[in-house]
Amino acid sequence: MPEDSPSPSPRPGQLLARGVCRHLLHLGMVTVEELVPRSGLRVDVMALGRSNEIWVIECKSSRADFMSDGKWHNYLEWCDRYFWAVDSEFPTDLLPPESGLIIADAYDAEILRMAPETKLAPARRKVMVQKFARHAALRLQGLRDPGATSF
Amino acid sequence: MPEDSPSPSPRPGQLLARGVCRHLLHLGMVTVEELVPRSGLRVDVMALGRSNEIWVIECKSSRADFMSDGKWHNYLEWCDRYFWAVDSEFPTDLLPPESGLIIADAYDAEILRMAPETKLAPARRKVMVQKFARHAALRLQGLRDPGATSF
Repeated sequence: MPEDSPSPSPRPGQLLARGVCRHLLHLGMVTVEELVPRSGLRVDVMALGRSNEIWVIECKSSRADFMSDGKWHNYLEWCDRYFWAVDSEFPTDLLPPESGLIIADAYDAEILRMAPETKLAPARRKVMVQKFARHAALRLQGLRDPGATSF
Repeated sequence: MPEDSPSPSPRPGQLLARGVCRHLLHLGMVTVEELVPRSGLRVDVMALGRSNEIWVIECKSSRADFMSDGKWHNYLEWCDRYFWAVDSEFPTDLLPPESGLIIADAYDAEILRMAPETKLAPARRKVMVQKFARHAALRLQGLRDPGATSF
């Protein structure tokens, strides 16, 4: 990004998220970033598939970033499948083998290990699809009409 | 909008839609524009409420705009409530009295007549919430990452 760009530089984890979202789009899944499933939790990427399946992908840019995450177990109950996304330099032996694994950069990604499936209960899936819809629509309105929340 | 602005000027109906979406946000509903419920149909505004209720709002900027719309009956089956949104100069006697009525400008709106409710069947509601979620997320990704669909 040129130094005179008005936009703040994205953090490394956000660049991984961008590549993850691009790849998931090619798989037919739509995505949002930074959704809050409940107070105190914020997922890096949540993906919604054509059968309303829900994936959560946490993006880790470094060993320190992963080691300082004490919350990831709490994300499991909000999705059908849980993945880590890291770059090709990341020491993947650190990651729990029972999670999915995605190798990503800012431009694309690839699923190296599919996550096991633990299906959401229908009532929770319904809630999550609605949360996803509300989150996406609010962020979209915020970008299309920055005056919407302040008029 | 200044002449040197790079953005195209929004059409009158889009300005009404913006005011409608702002008002619905204050009612706790999230919105998207130009959603396609099925091939050949495109609604101006679709709103999603906290109980997954779905409203459709068609924005008419002039008498001619309304008179040339031969499709509006087809929208009724995709929502719980159907509204027209027009500006304060519009001859509202033209509008079918069994629909809801919203008076709008580019900055806000007000519901003058609540639309009658015809509840969607649960299976269709589920489909529509998913369509809403996918539409919102795809548009959001398109704005956040214009390269997502072309890399």
